[in-house]
Amino acid sequence: MSRSRPTSLSLSRRDLRFLLHEWLRIEQLGSRPRYAGQTADVYDHVLDLAERLADDLFAPHLRISDLNEPVIENGEVVLPSQVRDALTAFSEASFMGISIDEELGGMQLPLVLATAVSAWFHAANTSTAAYAMLTTAAANLLIATGSEELVRRWVPPLVEGRFFGTMCLTEPQAGSSLADITTRAEPCAGGAYRLFGTKMWISGAEHEIPENIVHMVLAKTPDAPSGVRGISLFVVPRFLMSPDGTVGERNDVLLAGLNHKMGFRGTVNGALNLGEGAYLPGGEVGAVGYLVGQPHQGLSYMFRMMNEARIAVGVAATAVGYTGYLKSLAYALERPQGRVGNRSPTSPQVPIIEHADVRRMLLTQKAYVEGGLALVLFCGRLQDDVWSLGSEAEREDAELLLEILTPIAKSWPSQWCLAANSLAIQVHGGYGYSREYDVEQHYRDNRLNPIHEGTHGIQAIDLVRRKISFREGRAFEKLCLAIRVTISRGEEQGGEPRTLARLLNDAVAKLEAVTTHVRSTSQSDAVLANATAYLEATGHIVVAWMWLEQFLVAQHGNEAFYEGKRQAARFFFRYELPRIGPLLDRVNELDRTALDMDVGWF
Amino acid sequence: MSRSRPTSLSLSRRDLRFLLHEWLRIEQLGSRPRYAGQTADVYDHVLDLAERLADDLFAPHLRISDLNEPVIENGEVVLPSQVRDALTAFSEASFMGISIDEELGGMQLPLVLATAVSAWFHAANTSTAAYAMLTTAAANLLIATGSEELVRRWVPPLVEGRFFGTMCLTEPQAGSSLADITTRAEPCAGGAYRLFGTKMWISGAEHEIPENIVHMVLAKTPDAPSGVRGISLFVVPRFLMSPDGTVGERNDVLLAGLNHKMGFRGTVNGALNLGEGAYLPGGEVGAVGYLVGQPHQGLSYMFRMMNEARIAVGVAATAVGYTGYLKSLAYALERPQGRVGNRSPTSPQVPIIEHADVRRMLLTQKAYVEGGLALVLFCGRLQDDVWSLGSEAEREDAELLLEILTPIAKSWPSQWCLAANSLAIQVHGGYGYSREYDVEQHYRDNRLNPIHEGTHGIQAIDLVRRKISFREGRAFEKLCLAIRVTISRGEEQGGEPRTLARLLNDAVAKLEAVTTHVRSTSQSDAVLANATAYLEATGHIVVAWMWLEQFLVAQHGNEAFYEGKRQAARFFFRYELPRIGPLLDRVNELDRTALDMDVGWF
Repeated sequence: MSRSRPTSLSLSRRDLRFLLHEWLRIEQLGSRPRYAGQTADVYDHVLDLAERLADDLFAPHLRISDLNEPVIENGEVVLPSQVRDALTAFSEASFMGISIDEELGGMQLPLVLATAVSAWFHAANTSTAAYAMLTTAAANLLIATGSEELVRRWVPPLVEGRFFGTMCLTEPQAGSSLADITTRAEPCAGGAYRLFGTKMWISGAEHEIPENIVHMVLAKTPDAPSGVRGISLFVVPRFLMSPDGTVGERNDVLLAGLNHKMGFRGTVNGALNLGEGAYLPGGEVGAVGYLVGQPHQGLSYMFRMMNEARIAVGVAATAVGYTGYLKSLAYALERPQGRVGNRSPTSPQVPIIEHADVRRMLLTQKAYVEGGLALVLFCGRLQDDVWSLGSEAEREDAELLLEILTPIAKSWPSQWCLAANSLAIQVHGGYGYSREYDVEQHYRDNRLNPIHEGTHGIQAIDLVRRKISFREGRAFEKLCLAIRVTISRGEEQGGEPRTLARLLNDAVAKLEAVTTHVRSTSQSDAVLANATAYLEATGHIVVAWMWLEQFLVAQHGNEAFYEGKRQAARFFFRYELPRIGPLLDRVNELDRTALDMDVGWF
Repeated sequence: MSRSRPTSLSLSRRDLRFLLHEWLRIEQLGSRPRYAGQTADVYDHVLDLAERLADDLFAPHLRISDLNEPVIENGEVVLPSQVRDALTAFSEASFMGISIDEELGGMQLPLVLATAVSAWFHAANTSTAAYAMLTTAAANLLIATGSEELVRRWVPPLVEGRFFGTMCLTEPQAGSSLADITTRAEPCAGGAYRLFGTKMWISGAEHEIPENIVHMVLAKTPDAPSGVRGISLFVVPRFLMSPDGTVGERNDVLLAGLNHKMGFRGTVNGALNLGEGAYLPGGEVGAVGYLVGQPHQGLSYMFRMMNEARIAVGVAATAVGYTGYLKSLAYALERPQGRVGNRSPTSPQVPIIEHADVRRMLLTQKAYVEGGLALVLFCGRLQDDVWSLGSEAEREDAELLLEILTPIAKSWPSQWCLAANSLAIQVHGGYGYSREYDVEQHYRDNRLNPIHEGTHGIQAIDLVRRKISFREGRAFEKLCLAIRVTISRGEEQGGEPRTLARLLNDAVAKLEAVTTHVRSTSQSDAVLANATAYLEATGHIVVAWMWLEQFLVAQHGNEAFYEGKRQAARFFFRYELPRIGPLLDRVNELDRTALDMDVGWF
């Protein structure tokens, strides 16, 4: 059977139709009060618009942003003009507030749909899409934790895209250790605060696209207890606001320098100095900030946002992997080289997709990126359940599952969709290593995702230290139960679904046994030494589950698309799932090899 | 036990001393006629010099070359001046001809030593070192295949570093499929040829550092049979030579453009047009070339060189992995962050090497890069045996082993020392993704290695189609036998060596069974679909063997260094070797999942 070049090289609408409609049945959400009146047609229309904007306005400047990093000229951060144009169109299409309540200016669409939309923009140009992601995250954080006044004042301009948002957590001396931040916030007249300190690795730290930038900043008040329990959250705008809502003078927030990265170059990133008095000659120094919610609750507030941001990283990683897959597929369909079967040099060369190893590399990518997309959409769907289900028990079930899936949804695509990008390069051969083709940039861009919003190792610690024991282990139980529901459906069908279901069942049984051991041991140091192995094994089991789900939906389809889904599922079960064996063996033994490696022995 | 920052951040002299002297006992080579009179002191002096030149002249312009890609100015390729300075010093120290016969101007030192020297330069700056590697390879190719006159004329200036060499194999329409090259070579007066065609991906294609560039070019004569059997090898200089040996006029070789790469930017790379008449207004067109050896034997000649170049790629990949490891180790020893045990926020932060997951990432890197270095040095030592052993049977044994290890020595470091570079980034956190630190460049530079000199997939095909059946399977038998000798030594010792030996024995037994199956099946398409899995499993078994060898040497040492070797060996056996299980299972089943994936299903 032949295959023509895919129509879009960002994502596949056919796959989204399958995942959103045939599998997740998002049109059923319209029966819930939060999404009342929304139909499949509405959702398709939104996806049409996203696809068009992403492919027409985001994708074309992918390389331009890579080649023209943000620079400071005359004291201003300069970005390629296409970034502004793309984000303006994005805001005008109301995508900043796609899942935010209508009463705050949003579209109040399901998060599962917003996730698909976000994926399309990240696939087209992840470093431009990142500005939007941060802005939506800032708005959501304020909505969830801010006072009515703060929300009224700051959220609508974020939703409209007039203001952008940032997250200011880490500091040069603190890195992942937020207990060690030293930025201080001193109360001043009128209930506001003055902030002093340096924030590091701030994406979107400063630029001229929006009227204002709303920094969400972690800092410590003078009376704060030491460590993470003393952290409070503040809104610190780039420009102060006049009482009438117009943008006023510069706040005491100074861009201290830009970071130059391997990839993701279109997203300006730098350090911010708060309270240096740079813009206030003779005036009062200290960056003006407004406390969000209660004092000393900043970390728990930020974690709320971080769960969202972590899944958003998973979405971005998946999307960048997905576009690399489609581009390498298009290349493999068109590039003639070598022969298969008839190797006579006088016969014509064949497209490289005919070579078994190239097909393996494409199928591996397909298994990774479609598996990742299923996982992050499933998480979006769970968030919709948390927001919109009628029964509290059902809402709690969804919440538990979402909690435990969050480190997986962040780390798994960051690891394996990056691996997909490496395979996309490999399919291109020497051309893949050349900057004439996009895939090398995708590989560089995607390498950020295992680092930011909590490194791979931090996700592993989150899973083994917090999530598997979350609410007395109920989140983990919920996960196993949910997987077993799918397994039972497979078992009942007999035949191939039963074969796959039994493989998954063995894997889950093994994971449960290991988890019981991990939760009951007193050797917490050995658990930490094997946390990454545990995370990676769990991730592969979860994605195998996603593939069994897809297999069951695609089971009786005759269309080539369904054949492809079934074959990718088989591939994942045969070539990928078995990786968990050695990983879980080491976790189960609480292997101490890394732990016992004395520092002096290196 | 504490660990101070390593003295050099390129390679470890302590590790080289261990591998070269304690394990491979290179001082014994001095008793062979080829290396007569050479002592351990001589070898150490050469290593001292390499270390000093590499660290003083190559390492300092690593980033400079990355930021200042070759450009064409006034028709000339311009490189940073440091590249010339470094290569001039390299040539003056006689390193171009380090292993070449004294009668041709070389130092006639063992290849195992030359491999260690090469590793040091690649660790310091792989894209500058690449010019030297290509030059030595061109000289060796000429020595092995050229007439006395060609050797006399072209080899000495290559050995002196006055001329540089390149390899011109691929063409835009041919890629890995050399059967499809179309460059033609027409005989002309005086026994020379005129060449016409385009050569692609030529590293060192053109620049002004040497007096002349010697291109080793594959082309077809008019009477040639089609396909690979019609390929001949030619010397095509950039400048023609006057009869008195001075450099004369431009040859008809035109740089058609530069390639812009993700990494490895210091090595100029471009396409060459032969026979366009660009430099010969009114004169005869066609690039003048001289046939090397017999007509139509070009591919087999080039394969000879390619074996050397493939191991050289393994050396480079290992070296780039190694320096990334040392740099991330130095960072982890110095960067304070977070706490272990006492987590009170008022206690001081600890260096991140104290965190279990960071230590795991460092130990993983150590297992990869020291395993890779052992493998490539072992290959160098085998080449020395081929060159210098007295008995023909022993020479043949070494040759067989080297043949089958070549695709492993090329592909394994290219895969796993690149993985080490990714871990080096991860140890650095956000800083690792920033261009302020070297590790992101190492990751980009190293990504070339699974592509050039035969892609990863080409190595896999070489192993399953040629090497395991080479001389009726004797190369494979030889490999298993050699591994079993080490296993027996481990068995005899009892205790931990026996435990490791038995694990390796199980792995080899499994590999043998699978190999027998692969060699006897008629399903060659399914073999090709699993060739990469076979390559990767074999690679891990070979490196486990290298680690058992190292364990046995380090076994009774009390020095912290030996403890580290033993722990890295344990780590490799526990966390890495088990990967082979699922890989070999699929190969053994001759799994057809990728093969059966219809093109239309993607």
